[in-house]
Amino acid sequence: MGKNVVIIGGGAGGASVAAEARRLDPSLSIIMFEEDAQVSFTACPMPYYIGGIIKDPARLIARTPEKFIESGVDTQINKRVEEVDDKNREVRIAGGEKIPYDILVLGTGTVVQKAGIPGEEKEGVFTLREYNDSIRIKNWLSETKARKAIIIGAGFIALEMAEAFRSAGLKTSMYYRRDLPASHWDAEYSQIILDELKRNEVEFIPQTQLKAIEDGKEFRLKLVTNHGEDEADIILVAIGVRPNVKLASQIAVPLGETGAIKVNFSQQTEKEGIYAVGDCCEVFNRVSGRWVWLPLGDIANKQGRIAGKNIGGAGLFFPGVVGAQSFKVFDLEVAMTGIDEKEAKRVGFNPVSAKMSGNAIAASMPGNKKIWIKLIADKPTGKLLGAQVIGERGVIGRINVLSAALWGKMTLDDIGYIDTAYAPPFSGAWDPLHIAAQMLRRQI
Amino acid sequence: MGKNVVIIGGGAGGASVAAEARRLDPSLSIIMFEEDAQVSFTACPMPYYIGGIIKDPARLIARTPEKFIESGVDTQINKRVEEVDDKNREVRIAGGEKIPYDILVLGTGTVVQKAGIPGEEKEGVFTLREYNDSIRIKNWLSETKARKAIIIGAGFIALEMAEAFRSAGLKTSMYYRRDLPASHWDAEYSQIILDELKRNEVEFIPQTQLKAIEDGKEFRLKLVTNHGEDEADIILVAIGVRPNVKLASQIAVPLGETGAIKVNFSQQTEKEGIYAVGDCCEVFNRVSGRWVWLPLGDIANKQGRIAGKNIGGAGLFFPGVVGAQSFKVFDLEVAMTGIDEKEAKRVGFNPVSAKMSGNAIAASMPGNKKIWIKLIADKPTGKLLGAQVIGERGVIGRINVLSAALWGKMTLDDIGYIDTAYAPPFSGAWDPLHIAAQMLRRQI
Repeated sequence: MGKNVVIIGGGAGGASVAAEARRLDPSLSIIMFEEDAQVSFTACPMPYYIGGIIKDPARLIARTPEKFIESGVDTQINKRVEEVDDKNREVRIAGGEKIPYDILVLGTGTVVQKAGIPGEEKEGVFTLREYNDSIRIKNWLSETKARKAIIIGAGFIALEMAEAFRSAGLKTSMYYRRDLPASHWDAEYSQIILDELKRNEVEFIPQTQLKAIEDGKEFRLKLVTNHGEDEADIILVAIGVRPNVKLASQIAVPLGETGAIKVNFSQQTEKEGIYAVGDCCEVFNRVSGRWVWLPLGDIANKQGRIAGKNIGGAGLFFPGVVGAQSFKVFDLEVAMTGIDEKEAKRVGFNPVSAKMSGNAIAASMPGNKKIWIKLIADKPTGKLLGAQVIGERGVIGRINVLSAALWGKMTLDDIGYIDTAYAPPFSGAWDPLHIAAQMLRRQI
Repeated sequence: MGKNVVIIGGGAGGASVAAEARRLDPSLSIIMFEEDAQVSFTACPMPYYIGGIIKDPARLIARTPEKFIESGVDTQINKRVEEVDDKNREVRIAGGEKIPYDILVLGTGTVVQKAGIPGEEKEGVFTLREYNDSIRIKNWLSETKARKAIIIGAGFIALEMAEAFRSAGLKTSMYYRRDLPASHWDAEYSQIILDELKRNEVEFIPQTQLKAIEDGKEFRLKLVTNHGEDEADIILVAIGVRPNVKLASQIAVPLGETGAIKVNFSQQTEKEGIYAVGDCCEVFNRVSGRWVWLPLGDIANKQGRIAGKNIGGAGLFFPGVVGAQSFKVFDLEVAMTGIDEKEAKRVGFNPVSAKMSGNAIAASMPGNKKIWIKLIADKPTGKLLGAQVIGERGVIGRINVLSAALWGKMTLDDIGYIDTAYAPPFSGAWDPLHIAAQMLRRQI
């Protein structure tokens, strides 16, 4: 008899473990539990479903529970694991059923941060984390014929949802505690994002202290803040997530400094036979050399596959990440990679940075757009440490070259002359990347 | 008194030398000779001017002769250097004038291959190499109210010109000696290019043997081939270029195996005080470890800057290239990097390859297009050697990541898990790059 593998959480991470382990070792008995109605999803495309860009919710799912079951993974949706008993190697499902395991995989994801104000539990107040959330929001918009939305928060999910609500035809306001949206970004770039919000008629209200959510008069709900009162048919709270380590803590699986589950390069926790994947665990940052918490869908997929390979008997190490991430907000592509100055200093680098703007394609070509690039490098070694790129086109290609440069530990001298595929529809003969790298190189 | 620097050829390479040397060393006396009416141009944007995409020919020029003169570079356009007398360290200009040099820079570019058939000298038969060529072609099209074009050749200039002629409203036929266009590319990808030509009503006639060009009846000119006769108002001969080494050979500047001028990493030839840059000289390929001939505008710019830095006193080595190149043909983006199987074998690798097609962006998103990726790797080491990517979107970003991977000598294991910036408008959670690399990795 093969081993019993119990996977808690069927999101991108858990589902990848199931698929890969199943493929590699037919003798394994694999059960995957998921609280939600679907498995194999990430939150990433959900704003596009809510905004009506993706029409069919089935497209949010990489692989259905039925497909998993067909492939031989006992896939139990709408089922919550309440407790892990690691002494007896079994999990207890809501309702009392107990399932034994030899190998346990924690793919428990995140818990959403609450605003912590009265009225947050009211109907029409949402967070966006799970597949079901997107269905509920979409239904709510159509049932209530919603005309106005309020978003609390201004991170990338909040910004994507601003676009989604505008696409769905809602008047949209965004309340944030700081001065500028996307506050992880360079302030100049946050300002460009703010301009893009304004251009698309999203009202941005900075310096907000939340007080309460009450019933509205003209609209369903009323948000009370230090700025006064504002009404809307839907309020989305998007102020962040934390790693969901409830079950891990129950059985004393060690957490890292970040508060997420500590894992090794095989995705094993420090407890024998217990793996963790996705948003609930840490990931190694190749640039800083530190274990960080970076809850992103593509990382969850990769970690899931690595865990699945190890469980399935094909030892493989996860090589880590460099921190590449991106989002779109209306016509603006926004991306970063590597580490910022603060993190660079914290881990012992001597960071210097330069910002420039250039042409996304050849200046002579119609359709050219401005692109902004910020590079951060280590002064004594000239090594690239991080980058931010923003603009209306060509952003992702550039950030991915810079991510590859970080992966390969390249210097500004490399990037200043790196060979890219030049043709006028795609770039100038000198790419903005070259120019930015040479500019920062001169500064050193 | 500073040294006399004579630059022969004011294209991308020569002009970059002039600009950089001028900037670094004000004591230099710099003269730049150019046969054409402009300096600081590459052929790359010319098809877009001819096709009416770029309206103003001034946009083909990075920097005018006047600007160069203002900056203190004695810029002599429409002047041909007839002879170099290296014993007496002087060049002789057409007309007899002699100019002394301490440092000579050869930026003599290419000569276009002729078809070698009777009638090739007729009015209305063009090649495309220089700035003036694009002006002459554009004028010819409007003066003759041209309705039909014939292109001889099917390389990237020929393909870009097919799009240009169609954009300008001409019926267009393309005659080629082989079966498929873009014959450097994988045959499957050449077929995709052929389909794109057909979709855009470009007639492609393979297996052509050229006989003669004669006067036409319905149109200005008549092309006679093994397939019979065909008429057009313009015939473009685009069957390739060779390095222009006439002056170099005159003074016995050594050439490399490729027939282009041999240079070192400072762009110096093997003759004291003589540099070469751009399409007339070789460039080091970091993947094959060989000096190759790769006449591309971005390389000319880089080599020019390196030569200018060395002449200006700031020693700097050119790090070489990986062979990244791209073109657009109608809606298709086409790009390659690295070396192909044949070259890989020649230099001692054991190449294996895999092809796949995937999604340019998340499959769930509208606007997703198919993207084709071919990867070539070295079997014993797993190192990437080359790639070809083709599709309607996202091609350049991918080829540039692969170019960076080649630059950093990465393996398929790296590329299979390399950290790219995922968001549904830009890619799937697993990028086609990851999938292609993992597929080829499994094959090894």
